[in-house]
Amino acid sequence: MEKLKKQIEFLKEIDKLKEIFRQSLLADNSRHENDAEHSWHLAMFCIILGEYAPDGTDILKCIKLVLIHDLVEIYAGDTYLYDEKGNADKADREKAAADKLFSILPSHQEKEIYSLWNEFEERKTEESIFANMLDRLQPIMLNYLTEGKMWIKNGVKKSQVLEKAMNMGFSQGNEKLQKYLLSLLDECVEKGYLING
Amino acid sequence: MEKLKKQIEFLKEIDKLKEIFRQSLLADNSRHENDAEHSWHLAMFCIILGEYAPDGTDILKCIKLVLIHDLVEIYAGDTYLYDEKGNADKADREKAAADKLFSILPSHQEKEIYSLWNEFEERKTEESIFANMLDRLQPIMLNYLTEGKMWIKNGVKKSQVLEKAMNMGFSQGNEKLQKYLLSLLDECVEKGYLING
Repeated sequence: MEKLKKQIEFLKEIDKLKEIFRQSLLADNSRHENDAEHSWHLAMFCIILGEYAPDGTDILKCIKLVLIHDLVEIYAGDTYLYDEKGNADKADREKAAADKLFSILPSHQEKEIYSLWNEFEERKTEESIFANMLDRLQPIMLNYLTEGKMWIKNGVKKSQVLEKAMNMGFSQGNEKLQKYLLSLLDECVEKGYLING
Repeated sequence: MEKLKKQIEFLKEIDKLKEIFRQSLLADNSRHENDAEHSWHLAMFCIILGEYAPDGTDILKCIKLVLIHDLVEIYAGDTYLYDEKGNADKADREKAAADKLFSILPSHQEKEIYSLWNEFEERKTEESIFANMLDRLQPIMLNYLTEGKMWIKNGVKKSQVLEKAMNMGFSQGNEKLQKYLLSLLDECVEKGYLING
C-alpha cells in the first residue's frame, strides 16, 4: 500500500493546478482560464486533431505530454509567453518545481513523468512538436474568441505571435494546421484583435 | 479545410465545459470544481494509477473515456450522483445533448466520440469499468480533503457512497483500489466527514 499512498499523495497535490491562472480568457470572456482547464482542452485538441500529426505519431504520448506539461507551474507559477523578463529565469524556476513535485511519486513514475516533461520542453520528438503546436494554437483560438482582449492589453504584435508559434512547433508541423494558423492571424489583424507589426 | 473547420468549431464549443460546476469542492475548499478540471484530474488518475487496471487494458482508451465523459453536461447540466429526482431523466437529457454536441464534428468523429461516450456509460469493457472507478474515487478524495462538507450539506450516508461506488465500477475492479476505498470511507466516518448509515 506504500506505493499507492504516494500515488494518491501526488494526485492530491496536483489539485493545485486548478488554481494556477493563465493570461488567456475563457471563450465567453467571463474570467481567466486555469492550467487544469487548459490541459484538458489541449488533450481534447490531441484527440480531435490527431490526424494532422505525422503518420506513426503516438497520440497517447501526445496526450500525456499536454496533461502534464504545466504541472511545474503549481510551484513556479504561470509565465506569459511574451514576458521576456519572466522567461529569463523560467527554466531554473520550473526545474526546481519539477524536482520537488515529481519526487512525491514512487521512483519509477518520478522518472517517467520527469522524462515526459523534459520531452515536451525540448521539442525534439514528433509527439512533443505536435503537442507544442496545439499549446500555441489553443490560446490563439481563445484570443480570437475574446476579440484579442489580452493581446491588446499586453501590446502583443502579430510578428511576436507568429515567431513564437513557428519557433515552438509550427515551423516543423503539419501544413494544413500552419495554413489555418496564418489565416486565423490575418483575420485577427483585420478585425483589430491583433496589432499588425 | 471544411473538415478542419468543423473540428475547430467543436473545440470552441466545448470550452463551455469550463463553466459547468459540480458538487465537489476543490481540495483547498475555495470553490466548486468544474467539469473540465475534473476531467483533467481523472486523466491524471488514469496515468498515475494505470497499473491497477487489468493487464491488457488500453490506457489511451481510458483517458479518452474520462476526457469526454462529461461533455454532454454542456447542454444537460451536472446531475449530482445522490440526486434521485435529477437522475430519473438524466439519460434522456444527456442523449439529447450528445446528439446536438457531437453532430458538430465531421461524421467519422461524431461516431467515434458518441461510441466512446456510450462505452463509458455502459460500463461493459475493462476500460470503461476502470474509468468509472476513477470517476467515483476522485470526488471521494476531494470530499475527504474538504472534511466532507458537501456530503454533510447533502445528508449523504456511507452506505450510499459505497453502493454507488460498488455498482458503478468498484465491485468489478482491482482489489487494492477496493481496499483503499474501504479504508478511506472508514476514515471519513471516524473523522465525522460522512454519516455512518
